[in-house]
Amino acid sequence: MSAIIFLIDCPDRKGLVASTSSFFYERGFNLLHCQQYADPRDHHFYMRMKLSLEDLPGSRKQLEDEFGEFASGLDMRWSVRYTDRMERLALLVTRESHCLYDLLLRKEEGELRCEIPVIISNHPTLEGVADRFRIPFHCLPVTAGTRTDQEEQLLGLLRRYHIDLVVLARYMQILSPTVVDPWRGRIINIHHAFLPAFQGGNPYERAYERGVKMIGATAHFVTEELDEGPIIEQDVERVNHEHTPEELRRIGRDIERIVLARAVKAYVEHQLLVSGRRTISFTGGAS
Amino acid sequence: MSAIIFLIDCPDRKGLVASTSSFFYERGFNLLHCQQYADPRDHHFYMRMKLSLEDLPGSRKQLEDEFGEFASGLDMRWSVRYTDRMERLALLVTRESHCLYDLLLRKEEGELRCEIPVIISNHPTLEGVADRFRIPFHCLPVTAGTRTDQEEQLLGLLRRYHIDLVVLARYMQILSPTVVDPWRGRIINIHHAFLPAFQGGNPYERAYERGVKMIGATAHFVTEELDEGPIIEQDVERVNHEHTPEELRRIGRDIERIVLARAVKAYVEHQLLVSGRRTISFTGGAS
Amino acid sequence: MSAIIFLIDCPDRKGLVASTSSFFYERGFNLLHCQQYADPRDHHFYMRMKLSLEDLPGSRKQLEDEFGEFASGLDMRWSVRYTDRMERLALLVTRESHCLYDLLLRKEEGELRCEIPVIISNHPTLEGVADRFRIPFHCLPVTAGTRTDQEEQLLGLLRRYHIDLVVLARYMQILSPTVVDPWRGRIINIHHAFLPAFQGGNPYERAYERGVKMIGATAHFVTEELDEGPIIEQDVERVNHEHTPEELRRIGRDIERIVLARAVKAYVEHQLLVSGRRTISFTGGAS
Amino acid sequence: MSAIIFLIDCPDRKGLVASTSSFFYERGFNLLHCQQYADPRDHHFYMRMKLSLEDLPGSRKQLEDEFGEFASGLDMRWSVRYTDRMERLALLVTRESHCLYDLLLRKEEGELRCEIPVIISNHPTLEGVADRFRIPFHCLPVTAGTRTDQEEQLLGLLRRYHIDLVVLARYMQILSPTVVDPWRGRIINIHHAFLPAFQGGNPYERAYERGVKMIGATAHFVTEELDEGPIIEQDVERVNHEHTPEELRRIGRDIERIVLARAVKAYVEHQLLVSGRRTISFTGGAS
Repeated sequence: MSAIIFLIDCPDRKGLVASTSSFFYERGFNLLHCQQYADPRDHHFYMRMKLSLEDLPGSRKQLEDEFGEFASGLDMRWSVRYTDRMERLALLVTRESHCLYDLLLRKEEGELRCEIPVIISNHPTLEGVADRFRIPFHCLPVTAGTRTDQEEQLLGLLRRYHIDLVVLARYMQILSPTVVDPWRGRIINIHHAFLPAFQGGNPYERAYERGVKMIGATAHFVTEELDEGPIIEQDVERVNHEHTPEELRRIGRDIERIVLARAVKAYVEHQLLVSGRRTISFTGGAS
Repeated sequence: MSAIIFLIDCPDRKGLVASTSSFFYERGFNLLHCQQYADPRDHHFYMRMKLSLEDLPGSRKQLEDEFGEFASGLDMRWSVRYTDRMERLALLVTRESHCLYDLLLRKEEGELRCEIPVIISNHPTLEGVADRFRIPFHCLPVTAGTRTDQEEQLLGLLRRYHIDLVVLARYMQILSPTVVDPWRGRIINIHHAFLPAFQGGNPYERAYERGVKMIGATAHFVTEELDEGPIIEQDVERVNHEHTPEELRRIGRDIERIVLARAVKAYVEHQLLVSGRRTISFTGGAS
Repeated sequence: MSAIIFLIDCPDRKGLVASTSSFFYERGFNLLHCQQYADPRDHHFYMRMKLSLEDLPGSRKQLEDEFGEFASGLDMRWSVRYTDRMERLALLVTRESHCLYDLLLRKEEGELRCEIPVIISNHPTLEGVADRFRIPFHCLPVTAGTRTDQEEQLLGLLRRYHIDLVVLARYMQILSPTVVDPWRGRIINIHHAFLPAFQGGNPYERAYERGVKMIGATAHFVTEELDEGPIIEQDVERVNHEHTPEELRRIGRDIERIVLARAVKAYVEHQLLVSGRRTISFTGGAS
Repeated sequence: MSAIIFLIDCPDRKGLVASTSSFFYERGFNLLHCQQYADPRDHHFYMRMKLSLEDLPGSRKQLEDEFGEFASGLDMRWSVRYTDRMERLALLVTRESHCLYDLLLRKEEGELRCEIPVIISNHPTLEGVADRFRIPFHCLPVTAGTRTDQEEQLLGLLRRYHIDLVVLARYMQILSPTVVDPWRGRIINIHHAFLPAFQGGNPYERAYERGVKMIGATAHFVTEELDEGPIIEQDVERVNHEHTPEELRRIGRDIERIVLARAVKAYVEHQLLVSGRRTISFTGGAS
């Protein structure tokens, strides 16, 4: 069943649930799901409301105009998405295939409701995977000297394919503010460590050296500070002294896969709101 | 900060969140937290609303009368609790101390906000533990022939101590309908297995024989059918072929402790609603 | 580095580690890894010894002859594998692709060291997946009346492709003793529940009805009794009352994938010994 | 059944298992359990051997003399413990009781086989807990100016009570090299974060600010560098955006308890060897 999803945040005050749910009730909507969170520290309010699309009384534009008017009176930031229109994802990769395959298969199995119109890489290695799934593959090699040009080409591709979300599925390049700024809140990266432990490079090697007893992975929004963006999802797996760095890498691949998939799924189901360095994640139940 | 918590369920229909949140907003309440769930199968609606007690405009009775009138028009079942009045728990035990200690310590540390005015056992073994915490201990031994009498005494003690919730913290006796019926939904048991696996006796022995790779524990409401009541919480721990039944028992104790504590905490924070054989558990976030 | 792996079991007695490790030391072998387990109940001894293949002083046959003589004096059952010769797997599937893809990708990534020369199904659905990986696909449809013929064909294919291990990667047919008996200990199945809970059909539906708070999957050797064979690996994931049976199925797919992959990996790395209804699994560290 | 446990490490070479197991076999010992690990990087060998104490042919001194001679020829470092002689633990605490209670109860339940002859604190808060368990309690308050004196008193108490292992069960003081040096490898601390994330103070507050989706705890040996000693055990628990720092603290207490208990248990069962910054932990099965 198609749905309309509103993501809302505003300064907390009395009556926000009552007035917002009444807004929709008065227009004949059935409220399928409603989740809120009020941050006790800065008294800010976050809400996700899911409505039945078939109850829509007029046009989408009309609903948005009316809600915009309602919201401006309450100082609300808001966005709306309609689930009959799927998000369009660009997958950025380098040489490792496990996260790429995982997202493609979840889409194919119907678990990840989105479109993946393009795969972009700085290496030609994974072109064969793209071919298997009949998805256009663009190879944009990059060196220190060509970074600016390459990122311009990248931005061009994102426009050309009407991309909504960029997923760094083991893309081994750091994006400059040229890309990060206009795409803030719409680039998800998978880091192969349990942040904030082992920020930066070679986390499995460093995990081995430090002798940790669990390794992890972290999906986060990309900001200009490396590995510092709001965390969306994390998970870990138990390891022991016998595991070499190579084996940690293998074990880590399963965690990376699952953590990135959960983060992307949460995004395409409109369950995420960013609050400073933190992510409000309205997951944890039905979508 | 003290709160008022309403637990509500009724047949699903449009406008339930709007009308209920409006009911409270009109009376000046700040809605601290609101969680709902609509069962898609039988179209039944469940909601937990948490309000600030300091906003209470009149008496508690007046609020309840007004809400009762409001609710009867919507076919709602409902209950209300005030967090400035703590639930009173009777802990029933036999010989094993780990769950008993765990609950007593969590209360002492302030994690479990409740009163524990009495400990009841069918064996004298744990009287010393009760003494350490200065809690009255009643030993009600039981044999096949004295079951009826013993349960009458038990019911008497529950009345005398004004008990709200009975916790079977490794109480090794099956309660008859004489006790279960009047206390339906207010007796929590910890079963030392991952239900529905290993219902009945000797679960660790049977887990060893079956060669399972994880063992678990299950907290559930007690019904007249043994180990068949609505499940509140479960957890597991990894084991391997080297663990003897005795070691499974030891590992299991940690799971039992934590699973029972989570279930009792969810109950005393009014996060649980029963729906047939299933428990709607509004946990998963702040309480 | 290639290795020789001995799997041994015999009645327990003093000196087994000393005499066996001396046997190999005298022939110039470096013992790369040695794991044992003595069952305290029936006093039976299990051992896995991993040696460096490059230390092999003569022919493989000679080593086996000499070890055979040594072992017969100690009442040992034993088997030996050389890691430069990979196990050959037949994957049996029906309509669901997630476990199939997972095993194919792990092989492609080099994580699963084996050969997969054939995919067999009772439905044509997954032929496209086999094509993508350029693996022969045989469709053997089956009805109640054609079971005997179909299983004969199946056995023929296993012989023709020189198969060592049969993996039921969501193969939705029960194998008769005609297949199970000659392949005892060499057929691995993935069951989509945490056995022994929810044996038989529709486990996710039944998990929903029972209101469990975690769901799981179990990889086990196939015996003639359905879902009763020795368990190799299990895992679980937390769920809640909001998850519909369909969502449990989706969450379960990730657990099935990982649990089956771990079981198959343990088999192809010669880490498994069966002891009655239990599996001695020498995993837990480096392979 | 009482046992003799040898912990051994030396440069790796061929025949170490054979010669060592033969050493014990020749003296009539039954090898109950044998675990080894060879570090592939620095070619160092670690082994734990568990023998039946009732097989001891002569005196303990004689065995140790003979093994010492054997070991010196192989450049072995080794230690031996007899399980009929329990390790003596000093518990150091400040104000928080959860880890202290946990260790006391596990000892009482027989899970932790050790003696706890003394509890030492820099605050009087927990004296009542010590009283409940009839264990001597010493309060050694400390200020910047009295640190040296206080640590001398501490060292004196450790001598007076014949302590083998010091457990910092939420002891909120940093120990100087005066204490750490002579007790290297015999002080275990519980850090309330998943190291190396959130080293230093206020980890729960910082975990909240960073918006992590899991929190953890780490038990490690104490070295002169704060929170940098070899990690013995770690675990984590899932959290979400709704949890306040105070709730993280509460959830963290359960992890701290269990992680510290596992580390102490591993130590008293002689399952730990330190290798530079890493701990070789021969746990994972029967003890």
